[in-house]
Amino acid sequence: MDPSLPIACIFRSTRTDHSDDEYQEWSQRIAQLVVTAPGYRSHVSLRDHETRVGVTIAYFDDVESITTWRDQTEHVRAQQLGRERFYEDYVVQIAPVVREYSWRRTLRTGDAPT
Amino acid sequence: MDPSLPIACIFRSTRTDHSDDEYQEWSQRIAQLVVTAPGYRSHVSLRDHETRVGVTIAYFDDVESITTWRDQTEHVRAQQLGRERFYEDYVVQIAPVVREYSWRRTLRTGDAPT
Repeated sequence: MDPSLPIACIFRSTRTDHSDDEYQEWSQRIAQLVVTAPGYRSHVSLRDHETRVGVTIAYFDDVESITTWRDQTEHVRAQQLGRERFYEDYVVQIAPVVREYSWRRTLRTGDAPT
Repeated sequence: MDPSLPIACIFRSTRTDHSDDEYQEWSQRIAQLVVTAPGYRSHVSLRDHETRVGVTIAYFDDVESITTWRDQTEHVRAQQLGRERFYEDYVVQIAPVVREYSWRRTLRTGDAPT
């Protein structure tokens, strides 16, 4: 396995229709905390406020880092609150990235030579 | 590898700030098409309209199904348009799910016995 490629931790969830303030507070706290977790690389988090469906993907160096993050004290508390109040359902998937391809626009339309 | 677990195809992108109508049309067309792809299981797609960042995760039976989907004629055209007009940048990651845990609320607050 290419060690430069990360392990993705995919978290898909549906929010309950209540506890918004408390959810926002915990959501921000956990987002600030995860970036300090050993082996953390990056994350992206989106939610559709109509359907209340959300996806967070956090990338880590290895599975051990994900286990350590799973068991982090404040994160464990957030998971408990998630089941008690924040989520209707969720799925966690651990998925090592085996191939990656990225593309970025280099020449914008406005920069085109005439 | 557990064959009941899918392969995730993660597509993260940033939309350009133009071509909205054409993008919506293609986005819907591709969403309708992917569900007919051999080996397709499910997908979820979200975008933050402030940051223009989006995440789509499509799940397939195996890597071969993803390759077939990648090379599907209309999908190839959509990828071309993506680079020409729809996206500032994107990342595609192929990530086999090796562990999965799901949770669903069974007893709602209103259902609690008194």
